[in-house]
Amino acid sequence: MRQAPRLYVDAPLAAGGEVALSPEQAHYLRHVLRQSQGDSLHLFNGRDGEWLARAGGGGRAASARVASQLRPQAGEGDLWLAAAPLKRTPYDLVAQKATELGVARLIPVMTERTQSTRVKTDRLRAITIEAAEQCERLTVPKVTDPFTLARLIADWPRDRALLMGDETGGGRPLAEVAATLEGRAIGILIGPEGGFAPAELDALAAEAFVTRIDLGPRIMKAETAALAALAVVQAIAGDWRAEAPRPT
Amino acid sequence: MRQAPRLYVDAPLAAGGEVALSPEQAHYLRHVLRQSQGDSLHLFNGRDGEWLARAGGGGRAASARVASQLRPQAGEGDLWLAAAPLKRTPYDLVAQKATELGVARLIPVMTERTQSTRVKTDRLRAITIEAAEQCERLTVPKVTDPFTLARLIADWPRDRALLMGDETGGGRPLAEVAATLEGRAIGILIGPEGGFAPAELDALAAEAFVTRIDLGPRIMKAETAALAALAVVQAIAGDWRAEAPRPT
Repeated sequence: MRQAPRLYVDAPLAAGGEVALSPEQAHYLRHVLRQSQGDSLHLFNGRDGEWLARAGGGGRAASARVASQLRPQAGEGDLWLAAAPLKRTPYDLVAQKATELGVARLIPVMTERTQSTRVKTDRLRAITIEAAEQCERLTVPKVTDPFTLARLIADWPRDRALLMGDETGGGRPLAEVAATLEGRAIGILIGPEGGFAPAELDALAAEAFVTRIDLGPRIMKAETAALAALAVVQAIAGDWRAEAPRPT
Repeated sequence: MRQAPRLYVDAPLAAGGEVALSPEQAHYLRHVLRQSQGDSLHLFNGRDGEWLARAGGGGRAASARVASQLRPQAGEGDLWLAAAPLKRTPYDLVAQKATELGVARLIPVMTERTQSTRVKTDRLRAITIEAAEQCERLTVPKVTDPFTLARLIADWPRDRALLMGDETGGGRPLAEVAATLEGRAIGILIGPEGGFAPAELDALAAEAFVTRIDLGPRIMKAETAALAALAVVQAIAGDWRAEAPRPT
């Protein structure tokens, strides 16, 4: 039997409630999955846990009737990724994979050498929603509006460690750094292809919350560096650990 | 100034030697990079280190004159990835990113639930060569012909740890497992979308060289799981460590 489809909605979820679906969701259920009225689906909204629901009738104005809660809302970690925009395909990949890797917040950061100046945050949000639906998360990462690097530094919470991918050779091995950060709020900062400019490196090095990290002997593409760093941090200091709380 | 292009060749490399370039390489140098005779390029072949060379003349039968060695050949680790084929785009991504993450051998593994039965190893080899050129490796990963899972198990070197991504919940956290493997030969096995079949899980569990690993609480796509596992193993037990030998 095919698993019930899993959809993100914005509306509150509670037993007996009626939830409107978007035209895209209605189309997906009816014409891609060939669902009929009464078929099962799972809904989550980032706040109320995950619910079993039944497809309602209706044409384009489709809805679902909420039945019973499948999972209560649970904490899902608080890892942030600040990443300079890349070309469309690799940055889409960052948004999708960062969602699978449990990022809570994706912050596009404009740096001196950032080539892609237009960031389509709506597109990135749609990608994170689809990835969250597929990877069983109960939340969708927040995609913020773009920050300049100066603004990111100025606004960064001083108690949140910022691990900065440093291609100039000055960083500490990531596994070593991550091992000191269990229980800390963490963010990762990955620059554009071409790296940070010298003045940017100086500005980052001046901040006590910044730790420069080394990501091994090869020159990785920026999207690879972002995803690799996220995986290592989750494995060593995040929710891949045995002792990390697991959703039920 | 633009960095010299970096090309993989098959021929031996030694000072004063003349190396034939492929028509594709000649086209790339002349028409994409607009190089002229005498311009610098870097060559490596996986055996003789990296060399400075000068573009030669000639039409389609272009060549380069080898000048001086830039880096001696050095060990580059021996991490293997055995991964069930996926659709074209995600498996191309696995080949490219596995190269950036330092994999020495990529083994396509056919399993019961593998959907993609045709593996274009030539295509995968071309992707690994291009990724190796770009990430400053001195070697190109070996892409083997496809193995069945039964054959992989039968032929697997008994002294090489095989870390198997286990979505059924029976695995140990990867960071814990990796911390016990410094200095060991390691391979990672990632199944297809849909996971391993029960009989496959049993066959794997019966082998002493297999350790089932847990990759966190989210359901990752197979390509994400492969790349995340590679990053964690390199960071904890591979060449991202401070004490790992670095090429000069």
